[in-house]
Amino acid sequence: MRMPKMFEWSIQAEEGASRAGEFNTPHGVLNTPVFAPVGTQATVKSLTPAQLRELGATLVLSNTYHLFLRPGDELVAQMGGLHAFMQWDGPMLTDSGGFQVFSLADTRKIDPDGVTFKSHIDGSMKRLTPESSIVIQENLGADIIMAFDECADPLNHDYSKEAMDRTHLWAKRCLDAKKREDQALFGIVQGGIFEDLRTESAQVISSLGFPGHAIGGLSVGESKADMYRTIEVVNAVLPKDKPRYLMGVGTPEDLIEGVLRGVDIFDCVLPTRLARHNTAMTNFGRLNLMNAAFARDEQPIDPACGCYTCRTFTRAYLRHLIIAREMLAATLLSIHNLFTLVELARNLRSAILAGRLNAFADEALAKLGIARIPEVHP
Amino acid sequence: MRMPKMFEWSIQAEEGASRAGEFNTPHGVLNTPVFAPVGTQATVKSLTPAQLRELGATLVLSNTYHLFLRPGDELVAQMGGLHAFMQWDGPMLTDSGGFQVFSLADTRKIDPDGVTFKSHIDGSMKRLTPESSIVIQENLGADIIMAFDECADPLNHDYSKEAMDRTHLWAKRCLDAKKREDQALFGIVQGGIFEDLRTESAQVISSLGFPGHAIGGLSVGESKADMYRTIEVVNAVLPKDKPRYLMGVGTPEDLIEGVLRGVDIFDCVLPTRLARHNTAMTNFGRLNLMNAAFARDEQPIDPACGCYTCRTFTRAYLRHLIIAREMLAATLLSIHNLFTLVELARNLRSAILAGRLNAFADEALAKLGIARIPEVHP
Repeated sequence: MRMPKMFEWSIQAEEGASRAGEFNTPHGVLNTPVFAPVGTQATVKSLTPAQLRELGATLVLSNTYHLFLRPGDELVAQMGGLHAFMQWDGPMLTDSGGFQVFSLADTRKIDPDGVTFKSHIDGSMKRLTPESSIVIQENLGADIIMAFDECADPLNHDYSKEAMDRTHLWAKRCLDAKKREDQALFGIVQGGIFEDLRTESAQVISSLGFPGHAIGGLSVGESKADMYRTIEVVNAVLPKDKPRYLMGVGTPEDLIEGVLRGVDIFDCVLPTRLARHNTAMTNFGRLNLMNAAFARDEQPIDPACGCYTCRTFTRAYLRHLIIAREMLAATLLSIHNLFTLVELARNLRSAILAGRLNAFADEALAKLGIARIPEVHP
Repeated sequence: MRMPKMFEWSIQAEEGASRAGEFNTPHGVLNTPVFAPVGTQATVKSLTPAQLRELGATLVLSNTYHLFLRPGDELVAQMGGLHAFMQWDGPMLTDSGGFQVFSLADTRKIDPDGVTFKSHIDGSMKRLTPESSIVIQENLGADIIMAFDECADPLNHDYSKEAMDRTHLWAKRCLDAKKREDQALFGIVQGGIFEDLRTESAQVISSLGFPGHAIGGLSVGESKADMYRTIEVVNAVLPKDKPRYLMGVGTPEDLIEGVLRGVDIFDCVLPTRLARHNTAMTNFGRLNLMNAAFARDEQPIDPACGCYTCRTFTRAYLRHLIIAREMLAATLLSIHNLFTLVELARNLRSAILAGRLNAFADEALAKLGIARIPEVHP
């Protein structure tokens, strides 16, 4: 068998716009579609790497903004990089820091060269540029790193155009700044919900020779219809022979609709954040386990689920942990919620390989009680 | 091989006052000396039962006071009992609720029949009596249950005598109230730090026919010398042919000194509480991992430790988790601290079996930098 080249992307099966692919990274082959848990501060909140591995996670994301501020990327590099530091030996991805910095709103100032902002930790002034974002991400050492981009208000055309133009200039600067050969730098398409901008951005970004492409600036306030339509617009332009990553998106319905439109990689904090707020994500919708109705419920969260939490504990016990404010509640719900999304991505992949994605999507959305949103250009 | 009878206690080896024993419970044979992690509210804080099992825990304690108030012992019984509810399939022990109730100080009122107190959760008035404590513990269904006792100020002779007398009357009432055959009810010796009271209490309690005995009311403000001396006084009276449980005691030096004086079972919240306060317990003393000195320390907490945390993570990473206020810090430190005590109890057992407990105790205390306290009646 031929050894795949580093960062080689191959497609095993296609159905419509969807693909079942393999992306070869220095820390193993990534089977797509895939959902990546988010380990913001070099830890997926409340879970050990052993628990992450057991629930089936393959790709883990971490945040450049947070690690730059604390403990510092140079410290992480001294400790052997992010894989060694947090002891995740599978594929990893870091974002560029752009999204977090632009979320700071009142405490950051953008200029053509980069962004100056106030640290949320100690109020000190910090600066990120395309070049420094790459240096930081090279210090962190993830397998997939991201170009430094500007995420604008997706409903404002003028600002979206301005941010997109800057994102394109910065994308080239990131490519020029990159030194390590064992990291794949992905370019990010911006342009809000505007077809003209998204088309232009997808054309410019895909012309720069990145080994993979991301769709940024979605799931930040626009409607689901706008989000799905924008994914279609972008993926109609992005080349098929590179993986596509939809940043920060992660409800079950978004995974299904995204895969139907040709997305390969997803990440989101939602599963772990909802877990810390007592909410279970299931294939039949969300359950707030604090509800008194669960006080004596001997069922698992989802009788059809194969995660450790569902194989082991009743809803009654989970509710007790929540009411008693026990930390184990967040751990057990995080395991369940992440399993639900990781498993859904795996099932979407299996459906593509079996040539029955369309039927699978209909069934899965029906179970969720969510109407399928037709593609604009099917 | 003969099957041991339920709650049969056998001694494999003795050295001085110390014993390596086996106690047969409905959920498996307990090898002693043993250290029991405390799962106050039907969960050992921040750990899954799988993690508890992996770190070597065999006996787990839970608190009657807490479970009586929330979620209620009847709910736990409906859910199949505490083992099923929290999914711990090994031996379990519940205390009687006495210790917590008497800790409430200003909000409880003692009468000859029992105690009325204010719930710390909702301020409602609640009542515990010897009989109701047994009913609750039978609902919870642990393998070892405890007689309802009164824990007094250990330095006040008058109050200690009064509380001891009540404890003796209540011990008989607990024996009378007990119905389940698959639970071992242990009697508790009280009497503060006073030799006359402790001797009397050990005589009275051991005359009542309990299958095991506990030493209560220690590690609550008295000196180490007083605590160790009191253990000697009590164990000189308690019969050898029953297991002995020193309640709520759990530093490494207390385990060593306790085993040297013939204690078989220990429990304490200290390892998990210290873990939540950033402190690692090791065989060479405590480390506060928040200390800046550990920021770039690539060693594990204890290079000689075999726990998951020490096999996997650096001090630098643990310090980062603490500084970043990540929940995983508590989980990883709890695993390490519990492993340290569970393993120490196992090593004390091995030393007794090998006939070298005395030498082991000297070495272990020297490593801790703690002077061995000679026995008063060696």
